[in-house]
Amino acid sequence: MKAYNLLKKHYEKIHNLNHMSSIVYCDQQSFMPKGSSTARANAMAEFGVLLHEISTDAKIADLINNAENENLDFIQKASLREIKRVYNQETVLPASLVKAQSLANSKCSHAWGDQRVTNDWKGFLPNLEEVLNLSREEASIRSASNNLSAYDSLLDMYEPGVKTKDLDIIFNDLKSWLPDLTQNVIEKQKSYTYEEDTNTYDINKQKELGIKVMKHLGFDFNKGRVDTSNHPFCGGVPEDVRITTRYDENDFISSLMGIVHETGHASYEQNLPSAYVSLPLGHARSMGIHESQSLFFEMQLGRSSEFLESIRPLIIETFGNKTIFELDNLNKIYTRVQKSKIRVDADEVTYASHIMLRYEIEKDLINKKIQARDIPELWDIKMKEYLDIDNKGDYKNGCMQDVHWTEGLFGYFPSYTLGSLTAAQLFSRLKIEKPNINESIKNGNLAEVREFLKKNIWDKASIYETNELMIQATGEVLNTKHFKEHLESRYL
Amino acid sequence: MKAYNLLKKHYEKIHNLNHMSSIVYCDQQSFMPKGSSTARANAMAEFGVLLHEISTDAKIADLINNAENENLDFIQKASLREIKRVYNQETVLPASLVKAQSLANSKCSHAWGDQRVTNDWKGFLPNLEEVLNLSREEASIRSASNNLSAYDSLLDMYEPGVKTKDLDIIFNDLKSWLPDLTQNVIEKQKSYTYEEDTNTYDINKQKELGIKVMKHLGFDFNKGRVDTSNHPFCGGVPEDVRITTRYDENDFISSLMGIVHETGHASYEQNLPSAYVSLPLGHARSMGIHESQSLFFEMQLGRSSEFLESIRPLIIETFGNKTIFELDNLNKIYTRVQKSKIRVDADEVTYASHIMLRYEIEKDLINKKIQARDIPELWDIKMKEYLDIDNKGDYKNGCMQDVHWTEGLFGYFPSYTLGSLTAAQLFSRLKIEKPNINESIKNGNLAEVREFLKKNIWDKASIYETNELMIQATGEVLNTKHFKEHLESRYL
Repeated sequence: MKAYNLLKKHYEKIHNLNHMSSIVYCDQQSFMPKGSSTARANAMAEFGVLLHEISTDAKIADLINNAENENLDFIQKASLREIKRVYNQETVLPASLVKAQSLANSKCSHAWGDQRVTNDWKGFLPNLEEVLNLSREEASIRSASNNLSAYDSLLDMYEPGVKTKDLDIIFNDLKSWLPDLTQNVIEKQKSYTYEEDTNTYDINKQKELGIKVMKHLGFDFNKGRVDTSNHPFCGGVPEDVRITTRYDENDFISSLMGIVHETGHASYEQNLPSAYVSLPLGHARSMGIHESQSLFFEMQLGRSSEFLESIRPLIIETFGNKTIFELDNLNKIYTRVQKSKIRVDADEVTYASHIMLRYEIEKDLINKKIQARDIPELWDIKMKEYLDIDNKGDYKNGCMQDVHWTEGLFGYFPSYTLGSLTAAQLFSRLKIEKPNINESIKNGNLAEVREFLKKNIWDKASIYETNELMIQATGEVLNTKHFKEHLESRYL
Repeated sequence: MKAYNLLKKHYEKIHNLNHMSSIVYCDQQSFMPKGSSTARANAMAEFGVLLHEISTDAKIADLINNAENENLDFIQKASLREIKRVYNQETVLPASLVKAQSLANSKCSHAWGDQRVTNDWKGFLPNLEEVLNLSREEASIRSASNNLSAYDSLLDMYEPGVKTKDLDIIFNDLKSWLPDLTQNVIEKQKSYTYEEDTNTYDINKQKELGIKVMKHLGFDFNKGRVDTSNHPFCGGVPEDVRITTRYDENDFISSLMGIVHETGHASYEQNLPSAYVSLPLGHARSMGIHESQSLFFEMQLGRSSEFLESIRPLIIETFGNKTIFELDNLNKIYTRVQKSKIRVDADEVTYASHIMLRYEIEKDLINKKIQARDIPELWDIKMKEYLDIDNKGDYKNGCMQDVHWTEGLFGYFPSYTLGSLTAAQLFSRLKIEKPNINESIKNGNLAEVREFLKKNIWDKASIYETNELMIQATGEVLNTKHFKEHLESRYL
């Protein structure tokens, strides 16, 4: 196992160097003074070049070839599979394309900032076309190397092993019932009466509450921390996980749910097996599985009546008793469903419709069935069909609202919905294994929740591919059944 | 200038990579959770190896040789001189010695932690002997390479161009008057009456006051910040300077003076010429000049009656009015002189005696005139002579109190006193150039102070060697006259 061991050593080096850039990135988002941004950008770029050289070192290819002839055990074989996947992804594109993409993507997303504000689709289109053409070129090169279809070869970057045919089954199924279900929920909620939250909440007290809830959820403060940034994220390294949120004096619920969401991501990272921490094998399985952990925490657990009941005393202890903290009232605020043009404002019922629409469009864009100029018309049709919203002419709150396509991130959107479905399927399985789980959650006992996720997801890192992981955890491949049942039971 | 330009490019790379490790170091001191320390140490070590490889790349030697035959202007010649100095310092030691030192130094300083507590000189001595032997070996190699004496070759690491003969003049002079002066000040202060500070001060309010005083001193918060750490320091990079302090509820003065001190270091760093920021030429001149800036801020400026008067309103605005904030009372607290066994607790009158003692001992240690086992006896004799303190048998508050020698840092101590003298000499010159400077300081106008330092020290970075820098700034080489006058005028 000489070659395999040399590979391991090389990836330890990469892991250590990634540690440096991860911490510097967190500093940049939370602590860096504004005037240092140019020096920081230069430092990060220099380090990025160095790290890229080390990650794409030709000796890795030789070692992979030699290791394939070595006598490896099950774990080592899985490890080699993941090294190969990551290495191929990083090396397959010619430097000229990477550079052209980097230029086109930053040109497009930079200009997008202003163009979005002025609703300037015409100005945006030529930039987007350039980004799309390069992404199509990327897809064709990746596709030739991994024998996947064009769109699947991009999807594979975020969801290894997931294919268009799997997604088509999922989204076609969603399409058949989600628009009606959404309409029914909204009709039902029309009759709800509850008190709106008009209080203001001290930011420092909100921070205190956030930390209390993170502790309740099992976040390990010995190996992580929470800070503030403009856009909430979970970063750092498994040995030092940094989450962030932002605070709004008029809305403590949004920052609190942000914290619960990121604590889901963080729990996954903090509990990845330490024996493989420096290997691709030890990384999170996929974007979708990562998102399933944050959505498990935020949606399945965090917005459940039982969880709210368990953290209500912490809320009251922090802010004093208020009438809006009455359980039924909190429940109604936490599960309000509203149709909206904006994806990031969407609740768990309407969110999948936003993704469905984007998936259908980006798939056809990469497969060259439609062109960038066709996007607005398709957007309008689908918004009407899935959410009954008239989006005509309102590009800035329509097809120009997201940063993903401007940065060439085609194939990324489906992960959000895969995360929702996975979270629901896992929670459904947990309820079968532990019939009294809701009672435990209500009583503030999350040990069984964490054990279940640890055993089925966290401990397994990237040892199995996604389908196998889901079968081992839930007895079936990913499907929409449990998500549908979850929405019906919570909202109808 | 092809070779010189290639050198410049290489040092830009090093500067960018140093940025990464500087920010990660700051994170480690202020933010890192405890449980992440092993992963962090591995990451820093890995990065250190990489950075060392790049800094000692053999191609630098070739480029230096070629650049020496190029047609360089004055600045480029100075830049090449500094590159040569830094490169030689980094490359002259064989890797085997560096490794042996690293092991011996960490063994010694690790064991010292406990040995100091238990006053265990006998246990400490063999470790220190090992460290000393390796430092002597280092000195002999450096000495052969730069034609300096053994001790001077170590001194040159911290104080380029300063030699034993310069220090002997300075310390012999100090020895001739400082012990008497100290005694006279203490006698004089015996008759002082003032109110001791028995209040407690909210830490958040202390932080607010610190920020107000930093703004008053001209710290640029657009390119830096202040945080908390166990040991105050000034770190980061010139484009993003991080200072830290620690807070004590019972003593706001100590954290405030810590902040004033570090703001002196930070002002130097923030104002180094941006055109040379990535070159050795653009770095601070020496440890002594760096310390002169912090001591200028803390001692010359910060503890002056005029400065205290200018920040008194900020103190009262922050904590409310208290009787101890009466100006005469504050003055007396801020300029109290006490003989102490402990260097880091010393005031500006007694501090130099602590350094004098260490300088005399470490010089003879490196020059093999005495052995490590002779230290305690010499320590006792000199403590008696310079500070009239009986230190016999109290190793932990005597020769075992500092971390410097345990880590092989011989040649570092003199920088503290060079800093004190330089600060006094600069302030004395400033008073000649701006006779009303004390009035300006009292009125809260520090523009002339900063202009003077910027013009004479900050703008010049490492363009000139120390003697030339001092002559240009003050018309004379460094001497003890101004420091003596300063102490006499403030304390007698």
